[in-house]
Amino acid sequence: MNQVVLTACIAEVKTLRYTPAGIPALDLILEHASSLEQAGQTRQIKATVKATALGAVAERLRQQALGSNWLFTGFLATPRVGKNVVFHIQEFQPD
Amino acid sequence: MNQVVLTACIAEVKTLRYTPAGIPALDLILEHASSLEQAGQTRQIKATVKATALGAVAERLRQQALGSNWLFTGFLATPRVGKNVVFHIQEFQPD
Repeated sequence: MNQVVLTACIAEVKTLRYTPAGIPALDLILEHASSLEQAGQTRQIKATVKATALGAVAERLRQQALGSNWLFTGFLATPRVGKNVVFHIQEFQPD
Repeated sequence: MNQVVLTACIAEVKTLRYTPAGIPALDLILEHASSLEQAGQTRQIKATVKATALGAVAERLRQQALGSNWLFTGFLATPRVGKNVVFHIQEFQPD
């Protein structure tokens, strides 16, 4: 099981690129802020998340405005090059 | 919404520490591997995830064996210092 559900705003969008197999790919930075319960305390949580999307999701996501908020679902993966985990967006819908 | 559900093995465990408020805290590295559907293709996914746990969850987690597999649930947050997102473990159970 590898599932992430995250409400976030689109903070940064890179230029649309294509994988070696010719699939459209979009790299973004998402910003999340909320308050959550942890170890009995309510905490203000911020998350700046490197994300990527492929195919039709990349093309739809590219048309959305910077700063717009969405509910993203997907999974975590570590790229072959680099060590920071990336959120792979499989779907998004209005928050 | 900020929720992560991840099956992973405990790859690395740091020494138990205490927050300024005296709450036990445990930092770990989790390793996940699975195959997933993305843009119509089945892909082998690997994720090396920086994780942390607080309070009773930290103390229970500290007693588990390196290499053991679990189903972890929690959320993503970016620490005040540093920019890589960290998986905050709120609960774990046998996979």
